[in-house]
This record gives sequence, structure tokens and C-alpha cells, in this order.
Amino acid sequence: MFEAVELKQKVSKEEFKTEEPKIRTALLEAQRELATAPLSVVILVSGVEGAGKAEAVNLLLSWMDPRGVEVHAMWEPTDEENERPPMWRFWRALPPKGRIGIFLGSWYTNPIIDRVFGRIDDAAFEGDLARIVAFERMLAQEGTLVVKVWMHLSKAAQKERLLELEADPLQSWRVTDLDWKFYEKVNRFRRFSEQALRTTGTGEAPWTLIGAQDRRHRNLTVAKTLLEALKERLAAVRAAKPAAITPDRPKPKPVNVLNQLDLAKRMPDESYERQLLKLTGRINVLARRLREERRSLILVFEGPDAAGKGGAIRRLLSAIDARMYQVISVAAPTDEERARPYLWRFWRHLPRLGRVTVYDRSWYGRVLVERIEGFCAKDDWQRAYAEINDFERQLTDHGTLVRKFWLMTSPAEQLRRFKERQTTPYKQYKLTEEDWRNREKWDAYEAAACEMIERTSTGAAPWIVVPADDKNTARIEVLSTVARALKKELGEE
Amino acid sequence: MFEAVELKQKVSKEEFKTEEPKIRTALLEAQRELATAPLSVVILVSGVEGAGKAEAVNLLLSWMDPRGVEVHAMWEPTDEENERPPMWRFWRALPPKGRIGIFLGSWYTNPIIDRVFGRIDDAAFEGDLARIVAFERMLAQEGTLVVKVWMHLSKAAQKERLLELEADPLQSWRVTDLDWKFYEKVNRFRRFSEQALRTTGTGEAPWTLIGAQDRRHRNLTVAKTLLEALKERLAAVRAAKPAAITPDRPKPKPVNVLNQLDLAKRMPDESYERQLLKLTGRINVLARRLREERRSLILVFEGPDAAGKGGAIRRLLSAIDARMYQVISVAAPTDEERARPYLWRFWRHLPRLGRVTVYDRSWYGRVLVERIEGFCAKDDWQRAYAEINDFERQLTDHGTLVRKFWLMTSPAEQLRRFKERQTTPYKQYKLTEEDWRNREKWDAYEAAACEMIERTSTGAAPWIVVPADDKNTARIEVLSTVARALKKELGEE
Repeated sequence: MFEAVELKQKVSKEEFKTEEPKIRTALLEAQRELATAPLSVVILVSGVEGAGKAEAVNLLLSWMDPRGVEVHAMWEPTDEENERPPMWRFWRALPPKGRIGIFLGSWYTNPIIDRVFGRIDDAAFEGDLARIVAFERMLAQEGTLVVKVWMHLSKAAQKERLLELEADPLQSWRVTDLDWKFYEKVNRFRRFSEQALRTTGTGEAPWTLIGAQDRRHRNLTVAKTLLEALKERLAAVRAAKPAAITPDRPKPKPVNVLNQLDLAKRMPDESYERQLLKLTGRINVLARRLREERRSLILVFEGPDAAGKGGAIRRLLSAIDARMYQVISVAAPTDEERARPYLWRFWRHLPRLGRVTVYDRSWYGRVLVERIEGFCAKDDWQRAYAEINDFERQLTDHGTLVRKFWLMTSPAEQLRRFKERQTTPYKQYKLTEEDWRNREKWDAYEAAACEMIERTSTGAAPWIVVPADDKNTARIEVLSTVARALKKELGEE
Repeated sequence: MFEAVELKQKVSKEEFKTEEPKIRTALLEAQRELATAPLSVVILVSGVEGAGKAEAVNLLLSWMDPRGVEVHAMWEPTDEENERPPMWRFWRALPPKGRIGIFLGSWYTNPIIDRVFGRIDDAAFEGDLARIVAFERMLAQEGTLVVKVWMHLSKAAQKERLLELEADPLQSWRVTDLDWKFYEKVNRFRRFSEQALRTTGTGEAPWTLIGAQDRRHRNLTVAKTLLEALKERLAAVRAAKPAAITPDRPKPKPVNVLNQLDLAKRMPDESYERQLLKLTGRINVLARRLREERRSLILVFEGPDAAGKGGAIRRLLSAIDARMYQVISVAAPTDEERARPYLWRFWRHLPRLGRVTVYDRSWYGRVLVERIEGFCAKDDWQRAYAEINDFERQLTDHGTLVRKFWLMTSPAEQLRRFKERQTTPYKQYKLTEEDWRNREKWDAYEAAACEMIERTSTGAAPWIVVPADDKNTARIEVLSTVARALKKELGEE
């Protein structure tokens, strides 16, 4: 596929001079419209070494309003980045709506290099590429325009360019030993880049191949590619009518994992206290091991209002050094969060190695409250299952321990607790009008939860359904699950 | 001062039981009010090793609504933190309005430890403490309640506690070699902690000393201290009337650094092109050295509208690899930014080592547009000079190179450029109604700029006033200043 752009495509000085002001004006116009549009732009500037990626980006920046553009150079990851899944550094750099993020070095870089140097086999490479496709589709559906350009040079032209750069005292720094080490593998680079481009050129995020031998041609094509994509997408945004979203009210199956739960179990206080003490001690020791062995832990708590999530979380965390954990409770997203994909506000709190993040409600809101209240379209919550599974797989692949708890009460017990909250002064704040409204949608929530558990309980990131009508039983179940999980992962105490 | 709390202060089990529900209710109530108040809370939990800081925090968390609290354990800094001034890790962890941040380990930790182990002398220690006082005053004035508790144990009690913890299999992990290493220096710790507490106990951010021998006493006092401070401050917030702010319209001195500037200098295009090429090459080489030597560079650009900041920045940056720099252009703050001190939105973009951040307008907006438009009170912009000087001193102390450019045009030249913008299609977007309104306040801006330059031009972070009626002259002046600064700092090319 690269042959087509190895032909000498040239832009004359005159042609460039005629085109430049037109493109600049149009780019600035598009950027101005973008600034207030519900759209962000990610540009991946990729290609062979020596093709002049940084040079093209420099020019592009000088043509645009730099106030709306962020350039992200993805050199060596920092330790904060290394302590999270490899995609985290890209997640956190995603531009908000209204802005453009230019990535020099992207989520393609490592898979291709790893494949070229034989660090991963073809199956792993294909897996990486499939995930990239899914990720870019998610970006597109979350309102990000993904523009991907690949700058190509023929083998001969690349060598010529590298030698030419080396000979120029002002440019020679651009050529490093690594470039030559890469050049030695030029055929493999070509082969696997081609594979990557073929696999990941999708309707949502197509690749544009650019012959980079002629600088003017290269620069003009990069600018034009961005401009055309941006204009097309802005027109689509303009034409889009806000779709009326119908809240989804699924009905639970008569027999399901939640309504078949035995909620009658009771644990006497004495036995609870004894077990709590034992488990607290055990988790304390295991959490220290977690820290020493630089592993991380993510716990997700979901369930009906007043199911006792907060109480269970507090009992659990009392076993752990306060300096090791953070609790993220889902509140209304900030504007910085609303301007990015829905997972972003959870990504930003992923624990470092040796740390614990507890999510008191989580990304599962997408397939629970957002589905039922109609806060997102059907397509959005339907694709979320796969997106969430992929996200959690990245966590567990990275070595993060993930456990997800669904605390289940009966409607009768919920009612009892609501009434109790009404009369206990320091619990009143916990009860809102919304809680009463949610209660009326009990069946829909039950059905949505069942579907969620079915679709997102995986071996590495399982759901644990906890009978929670009895607080003692529920808390001990949570603590013993965490203790077992830590022990399994970290070995004997 | 520690003797007072070495007396056996005890809280009986019964008393604790009576107090607990009252305090919990009151804390939750205060927290609920806080959630929507223009106020954030920082709690520093400090004191001797073995005093049970983490334990007290655990209890406090279990009493409160964890959704509004963030615990920050300041262990070893990460590399991203090490690449910025030491305070950066605290800056970035500051809670937004409506929330509480608990710091275990604080900006006191390193100064005290460094002093105890003789790594810094008394003068440096006092300098650190003076800066802390200024920082906490700034926090207070920016709407943060700073609650500081110091948990104390007598020398004997501390040893006893450490031995007791060591003997308990569930607790022994809490005692590390470092604790004993610290214990050896217990007298010095006491002496310098006392000095720190004495110096930094201010009206805005007083210290509460807590005897930590009796756990119930300790826990109750921590909770009560927070509660009282929070209630008092919330009452003050409730009672505060929004002050009417009068925009400040200072008059320029007849003879000042800006109106005495020779704006008539012109540089012919030919000479400009020649010098631009030369300087671009030189800066390119020097910027690479900056990266290799892991130094960072901050450039600030201010000046009247249409003074040519953008053009100068672009020419400058065309000399630097696009992967090394970012341009931060001041836009309307996001809600996450508005919820924190005014410097926070600049702090978050401080460059890593080897990188460059260019601020196209900056924190100086506080003493320019905010002063003149009445966006902040007189007190606020007046204290900003010292706050900014302190901030920049932290940058330069850290080894960051700082240069600040004021690009100055004449009113006539500005008018000419405004009109040009009106007629050039791809420049029209640059001209807004506000630009015309600002133009009418020319004198006030000139006076404010003069005062700013006078008060914040320091040896390490100087202002460079650039005559900018001629773009060629201005750009060459900017580039040559940067080249000189880099050369001075990095040595010969």
C-alpha cells in the first residue's frame, strides 16, 4: 500500500504560495467553529523516522490558532504513567471538546516497535490492533474526530533523508542511534506498519498516507487532510438534530441472579464482631503486602440506594492505612469531565502501584442510571459493556486486582432503611427525593443490573453479588472476598 | 510549648460514647453546608511518629461523608513531582471548593526533617517557614480554610508507643527503621517542630496541639478542632456580603518605562531574515542542550492586544522541536480551575525537566485585566505581587529559567493593526469587541503594567520590555533575549 505514495508527488513553490493563505483561512475558520462545537479533535502524526513529523507539526501550529491546540510528545513514559495501564498516558492527554490534540507518538508506536523487534508475536499484535480499533471507535462515538496521517518515505529516500539531516549541523541532533537501529529493520517496519494501517483504517478513523519526500507536498497534505476531516465533521455536527432519548425500562426475568438471592441470612453481632476483627487484621497484613509488592487494587461498589455501600466501604477501609487508599464517589461530572469520554472521570483516579481506589458507584452508571433515566442513547449504553470489559481487561493485564460488588437488598428492607434515615439526625442527609423516585423504578434497575452482571463479570474482574438485607452478613462477605482475592493474588500471608 | 499537652488528658469510654453521635451529626451537617459553599478545607495532620495520625484520620473519615473528602499521603515524590518545585505536589492536590483535603505529610515535613538532620541551616529553615506562612495566608484569602493539628507524645510516651506497636503483630508494620532513626533525634525534632509551630501559628491558620497519649482524647480533639474551625468559617461565609468591587483605573506617570520606549526603530526585512535564521539555529541548538541537561524554561508574554505576542511566539517556537514545548493561552477558567486559588490553573501546566512552557498571557492577568475590570478586589491584586514573586522564586530556585516579555506598541500602531485585522480574512477572528473596549482603557493598562514591571521584575525572573511597533524588531529582540538567557544558563554552545 505504500507504493502509491512513493511516486514523486511534488508541490511547486508557486502552488504552495497560492494554497497557503486559503488553507490558513479555512483552518482558522474551522477552528473557530470547533471552539464551541461538541467535538474534540485528535490528530495522530505518524510515519517513518526522517519523514519530518515534527517539522510538519511545527508548520501546522504556525498556521493555526495555538490557543486551541495541544501537542503531546509521547516520549518515555513517566513513573506515574508506568504505574498505570499503557493507554493511561493517552487517556489523560485527550483534549476536551472545542480543542485539538496533536500526538507525536501514539498508541500505535509501541505495538509496532514491539512487533518489529519480535517482543510480541503476531497474535498479540493483532490483539493490540483490534483494541485500538475499538478504542478509536469509542472516541468517535464520544464526540472525538480522530485524524490519522502516516508519513511515508521509500527505503532509499529515508536513508537519504537521515544522511542529509546528519550532515546539517543544525539538524543532525534529530538523527539518533535509535533512528539507525530502526532503519536496519526498515523492511520489518514497513511490513508491520502496513499491517497496522490496513487493520485500523476504519470508517470512523481512516488513515491518510502521505508521501513525505517533497516537503511542500507533505505539509500541504497534512493541513488539507485535517481541514477536510474537520469541515466534514463540523458540517455533520451542525446538521445533527438532538435525538430524543427514551429512557429504557427493562423488565427483570422472573428468575434471575438477584431475585433468587437468599436475603434471609442473619449474622449475630457477636459472630460479626469476631469475624470483623479477624478479617480486619488479615486485610491489614495483606494490604501492606500489596504495597510492598507494588500491586494495585480497584474495588467497585454498586447497588440500590441504602444497600449499605458506604458502611461496607468504611469497615473495609478501616483495615487499611488511610495513606494507601482513596474513595471516589460519583458526583455530577465537572465541565472538564463532561468535555471528554465518559470513562475519563474514572481513568483520572486509577491507583498508582501499591495503592487502592474504591469507587462508590462507578463507570457502571452508564448501563444503570444513564440507561434507565435516558441520560444517554441506547447505542451508548449498549456499546458500554464491551468498552468497560476492555477497560477492565487493561487494568487486570497491567496487574491491577479488580473486584466489583453488587450489594443487594429487598425492596422491603430498603423501605425500612429509608424510614430509619428519616428519623436519625445524622443520616437524614443521605436520603433525597431522588432516592424515592429511584425506588419506583426498582424493577428496571434490577433488570439492568442483571444484564450488567451477566455481560461484565469476567474471570479477572468478577462481580460479587452480596446479600445485603443483613448488614453484618454483607460486610463480612465484602471483607472476606477482598481478603481471599488479595491472598490468591499475593500468595500466602 | 509541648509541655501543656503532655499532661494526662483522658477521655473516658462513656464520655466518648456520649460525644461521638453529637460530633458526627454536627460534622455531617457542616460538611453538607460546605458542599455548596465557596470554601475548601485543607487539614494538615502532623505530629510525632507513633502518635496515631493515620488512625485518627481513619476514624475521622468513618465519621464523615467520604464523598467530600480526599486523603493525600505525601510519601516519596514521583518523578513528575520531582521535576517541578517541591510545593508542586501540594499545589496539585489542593481540594476544590466544597471539599476537604486531608494531608498526611505536608509542606512542613521536609523543612523540619532537613533541619533536624542538619541538611539546612537555621536561616534556610526560617526562610522555609516564612514562605509557608505566606502560602497559607494566600490559601486563606483564596477561600481555603486551613486546619492544622499537631499530635504530640512525650519522649517516653513515644518510645512506649513505638515498642507497643512493634510488639503487636497486626501493628508492627507501622514501625519502620526510619521511625527509630527519627526517634534518635527526638530532641532535635522537638526543638525544630516547636520552632515551626511557633513561627507558623497565625490567625489565618492556627495550630492545634493535641496530646496523643490517650487515643479517645486524641481522636475527639481532632474531630472537634475540625468541627469548630469549619463551623466558624461557614458562619463567616454565610454572614459575608458580596462586596461591590470598584474597577481600578490607575493613571500612568507622565514619564515611565513604557511611554519612554523608543518605538521608532525599524528593522529592514533583509536584516530581519538574516538574524532570524541565525537566532533560530542558535536557539535550536540551545534548546536541545536544555533538554539534555534536564532544565526547564518558562516564557511569559504579555502586552496590549495586537502587540504581536502570537507572531513572536510562533517565530520563537519554530526554532524548537514541537515535542518539547506547550503553549498555554489564557482562556476562561474551567470550573475545576475556578474552584481553586488563581495560580492553580498555571501551576498545572508547569513544564517537566527538559521542556518549555510558553504562557500567552499568564498569572499577571491578576494585576492587569482583573485589577482594571474589577474582577477581583483591591486586596487581591495588591497581594498578588508578593505571591507571584514567591511563585516565580520557587521556579527559579528549582532551576527553571524564567523570562517575561512585555511587548509594547503605541496606541496609533494598535489602531492600524486593528483595522488591518478587520480587512484580512484570516485575521478577523482575532479582533473582538473587547479589544476595542480595552483600547479605551489604554492609560489604565499602561499604568498597571508599569507597576507590575516595577514590582515583579527580579534578577532571576526579569521583565523584558520589547518595543513592538515594528514586528521585525520585536521578534528579533525576543529571540535574542531567549538565546542569551539560554546561553548564560547552559554555558557556551
